[in-house]
Amino acid sequence: MPMAESMSRSRMEGEDRRDPLAEVRGRFVIPRGLRYFDGNSLGPLTHGARERLLRVVDVEWGQDLIAGWNDHSWIELPRRVGAKIARLVGAQDDEVVSCDSTSVNLYKLLAAAVDLRPGRRTVVCQADHFPTDIYLARGLVELLGEPHRLVLADPDDLDDAVDDDTAVVCLGHVDFRNGRLLDMGELTRRIQDRGALTLWDLSHSAGALDVRLGEHGVDMAVGCGYKFLNGGPGAPAFAYVRRDLQDRVRTPLPGWLGHRDPFAFDVEYVPADGVGRLVCGTPPILAMATLDAALDAFDGVDLGDLRRKSVALGDHFLSLVEARCGGLGLELACPRDGAERGSQVCLRHREGYGVMQALIHRRVVGDFRPPDVMRFGLCPLYTRFVDVWDAVESLRDILATGAWRDERFRRRGVVT
Amino acid sequence: MPMAESMSRSRMEGEDRRDPLAEVRGRFVIPRGLRYFDGNSLGPLTHGARERLLRVVDVEWGQDLIAGWNDHSWIELPRRVGAKIARLVGAQDDEVVSCDSTSVNLYKLLAAAVDLRPGRRTVVCQADHFPTDIYLARGLVELLGEPHRLVLADPDDLDDAVDDDTAVVCLGHVDFRNGRLLDMGELTRRIQDRGALTLWDLSHSAGALDVRLGEHGVDMAVGCGYKFLNGGPGAPAFAYVRRDLQDRVRTPLPGWLGHRDPFAFDVEYVPADGVGRLVCGTPPILAMATLDAALDAFDGVDLGDLRRKSVALGDHFLSLVEARCGGLGLELACPRDGAERGSQVCLRHREGYGVMQALIHRRVVGDFRPPDVMRFGLCPLYTRFVDVWDAVESLRDILATGAWRDERFRRRGVVT
Repeated sequence: MPMAESMSRSRMEGEDRRDPLAEVRGRFVIPRGLRYFDGNSLGPLTHGARERLLRVVDVEWGQDLIAGWNDHSWIELPRRVGAKIARLVGAQDDEVVSCDSTSVNLYKLLAAAVDLRPGRRTVVCQADHFPTDIYLARGLVELLGEPHRLVLADPDDLDDAVDDDTAVVCLGHVDFRNGRLLDMGELTRRIQDRGALTLWDLSHSAGALDVRLGEHGVDMAVGCGYKFLNGGPGAPAFAYVRRDLQDRVRTPLPGWLGHRDPFAFDVEYVPADGVGRLVCGTPPILAMATLDAALDAFDGVDLGDLRRKSVALGDHFLSLVEARCGGLGLELACPRDGAERGSQVCLRHREGYGVMQALIHRRVVGDFRPPDVMRFGLCPLYTRFVDVWDAVESLRDILATGAWRDERFRRRGVVT
Repeated sequence: MPMAESMSRSRMEGEDRRDPLAEVRGRFVIPRGLRYFDGNSLGPLTHGARERLLRVVDVEWGQDLIAGWNDHSWIELPRRVGAKIARLVGAQDDEVVSCDSTSVNLYKLLAAAVDLRPGRRTVVCQADHFPTDIYLARGLVELLGEPHRLVLADPDDLDDAVDDDTAVVCLGHVDFRNGRLLDMGELTRRIQDRGALTLWDLSHSAGALDVRLGEHGVDMAVGCGYKFLNGGPGAPAFAYVRRDLQDRVRTPLPGWLGHRDPFAFDVEYVPADGVGRLVCGTPPILAMATLDAALDAFDGVDLGDLRRKSVALGDHFLSLVEARCGGLGLELACPRDGAERGSQVCLRHREGYGVMQALIHRRVVGDFRPPDVMRFGLCPLYTRFVDVWDAVESLRDILATGAWRDERFRRRGVVT
C-alpha cells in the first residue's frame, strides 16, 4: 500500500464512513473542535442524560418531591441501572447493582469474599493496581487484624502468590497506567483452581470492551460509572456478584436501602434478595438518573463492534505515531498488540507533562500520569478515526517545533 | 386571649408577617398550593441549586469535561461544602467534610472511634436509632469479631450501658420517629466522663436546629444532605471530627481522594490532613455541587431565629391540633415541650396511613412511619405559619368526615 494511501486524513475519513458505530457520536455533546481522548477518565455528557437530569430536577424533585421515590421509581434505580450495565459486562440482569463509589463497592466485596472463604486470610492485589484498590484492601486487612494479610503480586506471578490461604484475588481488567488488558478467562480459571475468589475491577474496561463476566465465571467485580459509561463526574459505581454466590454474600456495610423491607424500619437487618443487599445508604438520585440515561447511548450497540472499533482506533493511533513521530522522543508505553490492550494508548516522553499541556491547548485532550506517561483514551462511541489523525498530527507538530517548552505548559498545581 | 384571636388563620398570617425568616422562602421552588411537611425526609429544590446544577452540566461537565476538576475546583468541593455545613452545626470550617452517604460515613467514624480507644471493645447504639445506624454498627462489630460487641441502649439508661469497655456511643440527635431531641451537652459529658467517644447522627437536626458541636465538645458526628439541608434526593452526607482528634483518625475506607496527594498514584496511602482523609472515592460532583448551592439558602440566617421559628411552628401545630381536633382519635407522639422536640411533630392515629394519604391528596404532605405515626417536618426556611393552620384544618376535616376511608387511600406498595 503506498504511503499516501495508508497514512492520510482521507483514509481516516474512509474508516469513519465504514464505522458501524458512527451514528452513535450524535448522542453525545462534544464541544466544537475538541478531540477528546480522556473518556477513560471522564466521559462526556449525552443529550439524553442532560434531558433526563433536567426532568428529575424540575419535575421529579422540584414538583413531586418526596413522591419521587414511588411515582418516579427512584427506589428501583440501583437495580435498573445495574441491569443496563449487566449487558455491557456480559452478566445477567440481576447480577449487577449500581451504588456508592468504586472504592466503597470494592471494600464491600473484598470483605464479603473473605467471609465466603473461612479459614483463608490472605487478600492478593495486583501490585500495579489503581492505588485506591490497594488502599482499600489494606484498610480491610488492617481492620480484620492478624493473621489476615495483603499480598501485592504481579499478574504474571499469580501462581506463586495465590495459595491455600488466599481468599480473594483483586485484579484490574485494564491497567490504568499502561492500558494492558489482562486475560480474564485464563486468570479467573487459575485463581479459582486454587480455591480463591476473583474480584475484577472493570473501571477501565466496562463500556469500551466486550467484557464477559458470565462466560468466564467471574465471582465478583466492581466498576466505575463516569469513565466509559459516561455517567458524569463522580457518577455512582457498580458491583457484580455471580448469581449463585449472591445469597451467601454478607456486606460489611449493611445499610437501610439494602434491607429486604427498608420502610419497616426494623431493628434487625434482613438482606434484600441478591445483589440488592449491596446498596447501603440512600442512592444519589440526581447522579444515578443521569447515569441511567447516559447508558442509553449504548442502545443497539453491538459489543463486538465496540471492541473491534476500539482496537482499530488504537492500532491506527500507534501506526500513525510510528510513521509520523519517529525520532521525536516518544516511547510506546502500552501493548502494541491490540488483543493485549484495553481502550487506551499510552506514550512515554521525558517532557510528557508539557507535551500533554500543549496538546490540550490545541484542543486535543488526553491526560498525563506520573512520571512521564501520556494517556489517550479511545471511546468507540464517539471517537472518530479522523480525531486520531488530528491528534497525532498535533503531537508531531508539538514535538517537532518544541511547542511544549512554552511557559504556559510548565508543571504546577493539581494534575488530573 | 379570646379564642377568635388565639386560633385563627389571620393570627397565623400575623406570625408570618413578624417572621424574620419569611423572606427566605423565596429562595425555594415550592409547588403552587403545596403545604410541604416532609422536608425532614426530602428538602425542596432551591432556585440557586437548580441554576448551579445546570451550569455544572452544561458548562463544567458538558463543555470543559475533565478540566472541571481544576478549572471549576471540583476537587475542593468536599471541604468547601463541609465548611458551609460546619457553620450550621456549630463547628469550625475545617472540622466537617462532605462525602458518601450518612451510612458509609457512620461506618468510617465508628471504626475510627474503636481504633482510637484501644482495649475498649464495645459499641453502644441508641436502641431506637434509625435502623441503618444499628445495622452499620452491627456490621462493624461482626467484622471485628469477638470480643467486640454491640450494645443497644435507651438514651435514658446510658449510665448503665456505658462502661470501661465502651469505645464509642452513637446517638441520634433527634429521633426520626418521635421527634425527641436529646440533650447533646449533658449526654456528651456523661459519655466522655466514662472515657468513651461520642458519635452523633445529626440527620434530623442539622439545618433545623442550632446544633452546637463545638460548644459541647462532641467528638464525631455524621449527618444527611437531603433532609433539612435540601441537597436533593440522595445528596452527599457529611462527617465531623473534632479538630484535635483528626490527625489520629484512621478511616477503614482509605480511598484515593482521601490521600494527601491523590495524583501521585502512590502505592502507599498517606492520609490527607484533617477531615479530608474521610473522603474515599471520587465524589459525586453533580450531587455535591447541588448541595453546595442549596446551602446558600442559609445565607444570613441566624441559627437562633431558625430554632425559635421551628419551636414556634411546632407549638402552634400542636396547640391547633388540641383546639381543633379533639375527640377525633389523635394522640400526641412527640414531646409537647418545644425544648425537648426537634423540628417535627408526630401524631398517632389508628388509621394513620390512610389519614396521611388523604392529607397528601389535599396537597398537605407529611409522611407515615409504621405502625401508626404521622410525621410533619417543620422547616423554618420555607414553612409558613399559615401552612400549619391549613394542615391542621385539612386534618380536622379528614378525621371529622372520615375522608380517609376512601378506597384510594388504602395501604399498598412501598411506603416512604
